Amino acid sequence: MERITATYLIETPISVERAAATLAGEQSSGTFVSVPGESEKLKQRFAARIEQITPLETVRQPSLPGCRVRGNAYQRAEVIVSWSIENVGTNLPTIVSTVQGNLYELTQLSGLKLLDLSFPDSFIEHFAGPRWGIPGTRKLAGVENRPLIGTIIKPSVGLTPRQTAELVGVLADAGIDFIKDDELMADPPHAPFEARLQAIQPVIHDYAERTGKRILYAYNVSGEIDTMLRHYEQVVVAGGSCVMVSLNSVGLTGVKKLCDQGALAVHGHRNGWGMLNRHPVLGIEFPAYQKIWRLAGVDQIHVNGIQNKFWEPDDSVVRSIQACLKPMLGGYSILPVLSSGQWGGQAYETYRQTQTIDLLYLAGGGIMAHPDGPEGGVRALHRAWEAAVAGKTIEEAARESPELRRSIEKFGSSGKVKA
Amino acid sequence: MERITATYLIETPISVERAAATLAGEQSSGTFVSVPGESEKLKQRFAARIEQITPLETVRQPSLPGCRVRGNAYQRAEVIVSWSIENVGTNLPTIVSTVQGNLYELTQLSGLKLLDLSFPDSFIEHFAGPRWGIPGTRKLAGVENRPLIGTIIKPSVGLTPRQTAELVGVLADAGIDFIKDDELMADPPHAPFEARLQAIQPVIHDYAERTGKRILYAYNVSGEIDTMLRHYEQVVVAGGSCVMVSLNSVGLTGVKKLCDQGALAVHGHRNGWGMLNRHPVLGIEFPAYQKIWRLAGVDQIHVNGIQNKFWEPDDSVVRSIQACLKPMLGGYSILPVLSSGQWGGQAYETYRQTQTIDLLYLAGGGIMAHPDGPEGGVRALHRAWEAAVAGKTIEEAARESPELRRSIEKFGSSGKVKA
Repeated sequence: MERITATYLIETPISVERAAATLAGEQSSGTFVSVPGESEKLKQRFAARIEQITPLETVRQPSLPGCRVRGNAYQRAEVIVSWSIENVGTNLPTIVSTVQGNLYELTQLSGLKLLDLSFPDSFIEHFAGPRWGIPGTRKLAGVENRPLIGTIIKPSVGLTPRQTAELVGVLADAGIDFIKDDELMADPPHAPFEARLQAIQPVIHDYAERTGKRILYAYNVSGEIDTMLRHYEQVVVAGGSCVMVSLNSVGLTGVKKLCDQGALAVHGHRNGWGMLNRHPVLGIEFPAYQKIWRLAGVDQIHVNGIQNKFWEPDDSVVRSIQACLKPMLGGYSILPVLSSGQWGGQAYETYRQTQTIDLLYLAGGGIMAHPDGPEGGVRALHRAWEAAVAGKTIEEAARESPELRRSIEKFGSSGKVKA
Repeated sequence: MERITATYLIETPISVERAAATLAGEQSSGTFVSVPGESEKLKQRFAARIEQITPLETVRQPSLPGCRVRGNAYQRAEVIVSWSIENVGTNLPTIVSTVQGNLYELTQLSGLKLLDLSFPDSFIEHFAGPRWGIPGTRKLAGVENRPLIGTIIKPSVGLTPRQTAELVGVLADAGIDFIKDDELMADPPHAPFEARLQAIQPVIHDYAERTGKRILYAYNVSGEIDTMLRHYEQVVVAGGSCVMVSLNSVGLTGVKKLCDQGALAVHGHRNGWGMLNRHPVLGIEFPAYQKIWRLAGVDQIHVNGIQNKFWEPDDSVVRSIQACLKPMLGGYSILPVLSSGQWGGQAYETYRQTQTIDLLYLAGGGIMAHPDGPEGGVRALHRAWEAAVAGKTIEEAARESPELRRSIEKFGSSGKVKA
């Protein structure tokens, strides 16, 4: 039988072998005493199997409260566990309950982080995965051979549909490839979804008629299932090509339902991610997280950005980008979306560390607040990326581009954002 | 304009006032520099408002990594923030994105936990809330004047539909009120949902015909949207009265869609909860969490149990029970579900600390592994609860009940579970 595999970082005051056995037991038989019916044969067929234990460092203090046993040292280890697909089939929510579920509650552990997952080849038959991914998103936006340059409608909240549409016009004239709603903006009374769509989409059409360039607009459809599907359909009818969804707030089944419609690219925003990831020994790492969303069919997923305004260190962002670019089950292409405090100055380091242009590079303030206006902001981003790919530093690029020089003056220097 | 209010525990190396201002700013305008269009008038109308700051203790070490500023002390504070409903309307996922969202990513914070939420009265018009809650679940189960006694099918994984149905027969004869699937068991190849339903439901019907007592069975419908709705409908057709769903794995919109069907009670399992809650200064506290699910319409929600097998301390469990029992928007009744290592010995402390019998009290091994068999297990639970409500200690109760005596011998003494 094929198996699903999960890799964990654990921390425990007891032996890592016993802790791993508890973890595996909780997610198979799942009660605190042996029960009738739990035969050896049944156990063997359905029990989670510990595949590998790699001891790591020990720490003096438990990372999380709640261990019954108090130790002088808390051992960390990487533990690989597997389950037969007989246990769960292709039921994605139940797979999540199996690989995470009650494990974070165990008193034998003072830390647990799900690092990675692997799924069997047969999943290809059930999960269509991202319908667009990297090549599809590029085709929709008409952009090849460079990162897609995008922005977010700001201020996040408060613009009327008409003001938003005017801003889209400005951004179109500035040469943007991609625009998204903010995650705080979906369907509020002051700017209802349909009114925004009806105001924005004609601007995009007119611009495409005039220039041949069709901007990808990710309309935030996040909402209840029926509302999301209705808004999705409205985007289809209006000739749009992309919707956005807050992955954690909408949840796995709602997002998959949306992706399953298959007519539009789905832009996955991971707001709420810090709650799941910021602690070093609690929650889930991005390589595991993004695989779940790729199975669900998300085409584009946020990974933060190099030298971002948030807490996430660069090496973590780089690992996230690499995780997205690694094929899964031989495909399931997903486009990493960089954002947070980006203005172009980070292009050099981003390219140096990832060696890819398969990115959707979002700048909000970095474009909107450019001293020459949004057009200057977009141009500065293009110049920064061309220079980065050519191996030039930001300083070299700045000598050749007045817009980039002004970006540096306003937003930072040598790639560092001023607070 | 009505406002949505969120109460946070924050921890910061900077002044709590500045940290709170950053938090509020991130969830209103949301970029790292001021942008055109962000007028004072717009800010005033849509900005998150800091309602109250209550400084708490300081700690020497940051609870989470990633603060840009290093301090000698990290100040904790309770901060209350509000948003106009103009920002979000009744869009539940976007409300979640607004009150949580990127906040956990802020470098100005070394800790953030969402403690509580409050919603405006007008939400009553949009959110039907739990259709059954405490009175409805009692009516479905035909149980008044005592806690509902329930159990979980164990072993969690591996039983065939026929074996499961046989076990249901045994549990019925034992006098159980409620049975639920395990969260690891939904629709696997070895025990497909429909086959389980078709095997189990006749046993429940036959028992009801014979005795007049209709057992509430919570079928785990967790799965993709269409599958959940199909399974839900099958339960309706088969004459069932309850479905179960893994809240975190299925996600908010899928769960709400299910609750909106309105024909069956929805049993909410919170597996994955430890990831969101175990850290003292990261994630979300149960009072906030359960309100979101009440808005979605969940009728029964897990709260762990006193002296449980997991890490959660008793005072936290007590707070969770109290949170469920507190009316929300004047109603939205939800039944707290106690489980994890329960066998009856905890009844006395549970009642003493909560003074309620509005509980669904689940025991897995505590019933199935009872020395006299499940019937003895259920009888022991009844005796334990009767004694608890009468103010008798477990020792007093044990003198009057041989079944309870044997539970104590097997599972613990004085309410403590043997490891």
